[in-house]
Amino acid sequence: MPKQSPADPDLPGIFQALADPTRLAVVERLSVAPASASELAKPFAMALPSFMQHMGVLERAGIVRSHKSGRTRTYQLAPGALQLASAWLAEFRNHWERSLDQLDQLLIATNPIERHPTPHKEPT
Amino acid sequence: MPKQSPADPDLPGIFQALADPTRLAVVERLSVAPASASELAKPFAMALPSFMQHMGVLERAGIVRSHKSGRTRTYQLAPGALQLASAWLAEFRNHWERSLDQLDQLLIATNPIERHPTPHKEPT
Repeated sequence: MPKQSPADPDLPGIFQALADPTRLAVVERLSVAPASASELAKPFAMALPSFMQHMGVLERAGIVRSHKSGRTRTYQLAPGALQLASAWLAEFRNHWERSLDQLDQLLIATNPIERHPTPHKEPT
Repeated sequence: MPKQSPADPDLPGIFQALADPTRLAVVERLSVAPASASELAKPFAMALPSFMQHMGVLERAGIVRSHKSGRTRTYQLAPGALQLASAWLAEFRNHWERSLDQLDQLLIATNPIERHPTPHKEPT
C-alpha cells in the first residue's frame, strides 16, 4: 500500500512548484503514466542534474513521489498536493460569480456612463 | 462593462503569484468582496509599499484588477486567471484516479510483499 508522507504539503509551496513550465510539463506527462527520470528528462534541452532539481522541487512539494528499483528512479503523481490546490481554487467558484455581480454593481455605482460606452449602431 | 485584458495570463505566472501566503490570503479576502488597498493591507504586519508589491504581482498575473476612484484604489478578483489554473488542475482528476490504479499495479509488480506489510491482528 502506498505510504504517503510528503513533508506537510502547504499551498504556497505547491503553487511555487507549479510556477515553472518544465515542471508543469512533467506533471502533465506523469498524469498519463508513471515514468523514469530519464524518460521524463528526454523532451527537455537541459542537463540531467538541472532537470533533477526540478524533480526535487516537485517531490518536496508532495506533487510527485518516486521509488528506486536498481539504477532506475520511477516517478508518479502523488495526487494529494494537486487535489489540495484544486480544492482551494474550487472554493472560489461560487465567489467568482458573486464577485462578478458585485463588480457590475460597483461599476454602476461609480461610473454609470461606462455601462453604455458606445452606441449600438454607428451612424452611416 | 469590465474590460478584461490581463497581459496574456500564463499558468506558471499565475502559480507564481499564488506561491505566497500573503497573496493567498488577499485572494481569499477578495473572494468575499472587493476592497481598497488599505483595507486589504490592514491584517498584515508589513509596510504599505511592500504590500503593494504583492498586489502588483497579483495584478500582473491577471488574478486581481483594480480601479482608482479619487485617492482610493479598489481591488477585485479577475476570475479568468484563477479559472485557468482551476481548469488545468481539474484536467487531472480522471488521471489521478487512473494514476492511483497504475501505482497499485506498479507496487504489486515490483514489491508484492509491500501489499501485506503487517498482519491484521497482533497476537495478544
